[in-house]
Amino acid sequence: MSTSERLIESTRALLWERGYVGTSPKAILERAGAGQGSMYHHFKGKPDLALAAIRRTAEEMRATAAGVLDGPGTPYERIEAYLLRERDVLRGCPVGRLTMDPDVIADDALRAPVDETLDWLRARLAGIVEEGREQGEFAPGLDSEEIAAAVVATVQGGYVLARASGSPAAFDAGVRGLLALLAPQDRQPRTRP
Amino acid sequence: MSTSERLIESTRALLWERGYVGTSPKAILERAGAGQGSMYHHFKGKPDLALAAIRRTAEEMRATAAGVLDGPGTPYERIEAYLLRERDVLRGCPVGRLTMDPDVIADDALRAPVDETLDWLRARLAGIVEEGREQGEFAPGLDSEEIAAAVVATVQGGYVLARASGSPAAFDAGVRGLLALLAPQDRQPRTRP
Repeated sequence: MSTSERLIESTRALLWERGYVGTSPKAILERAGAGQGSMYHHFKGKPDLALAAIRRTAEEMRATAAGVLDGPGTPYERIEAYLLRERDVLRGCPVGRLTMDPDVIADDALRAPVDETLDWLRARLAGIVEEGREQGEFAPGLDSEEIAAAVVATVQGGYVLARASGSPAAFDAGVRGLLALLAPQDRQPRTRP
Repeated sequence: MSTSERLIESTRALLWERGYVGTSPKAILERAGAGQGSMYHHFKGKPDLALAAIRRTAEEMRATAAGVLDGPGTPYERIEAYLLRERDVLRGCPVGRLTMDPDVIADDALRAPVDETLDWLRARLAGIVEEGREQGEFAPGLDSEEIAAAVVATVQGGYVLARASGSPAAFDAGVRGLLALLAPQDRQPRTRP
């Protein structure tokens, strides 16, 4: 792996574990096994390197979500598959957790990939809810954008509950609760693998 | 206000704004207008002071939630009132945000008040859902603990969406989506004031 790659991958790991505020340039260099000079050769500084790292994490999250949401099944089944897909629940969401980072939120450039990714996810889910309404799987009175926001919020908030309690059970409970409310009549939600 | 009080209140504000990792003892002392000696006179150090601050914030959050959840109305109306109560949405939840703080999650003493508060909230909400099931306001097949987890997760995740987008609208959308799914037939959810 090139030095530039090692710097980006180390930054991604540290941002996920410790957030932006908690990640020092020194910690990145140590993890990457790189010197200060090489960081400034490839990047303008911590914000620039963090932006590259956040963009890559955001792209990965989008690809993973798209893989499930564009998969087979009815609209309900695709939303179910998205909510139940395997996750490293106790680590939290590498994109969503950045919203609790004051220096990310204060910097429009760093916030942009976070906002765009969650926005994309909501829009994609809203389209699926819309399909489900048209096919009669969901009630016609539901607002697809509101349901989509509730789905994304349940996942993001599920991480909060799981990390607070030190167990994925709380995440699973929230997701199952939402699925039970969303499920077409006479349908039992499945369980996360 | 006593020095000890000023230290606690300054720590609470900084924990909310910048998290535990992002809050230095120096920043606390500056904000409190206190010297290092007075901090160590009253507290063993940053973890001890943070614990006092987190406990007080957790107590306040519990009192505010109880005020709404123990208020008048049917079970659905009380859950609706909880979800729609006025919040400083863009600041996020002062308790929930601590779950994204690696040093809080790694320290059982600091994590305890966060876990206990969210746990209390879920249990209180589950009791209300249970009441609603008994009174026929909610479907008998719903699992009250799962619905309670979905309610708390939607709020916590709603903060993530709002902070990502820089607008409370995404929080409101998620809450309205959940309320639409939870609402008894022929009932339109209200709007957050």
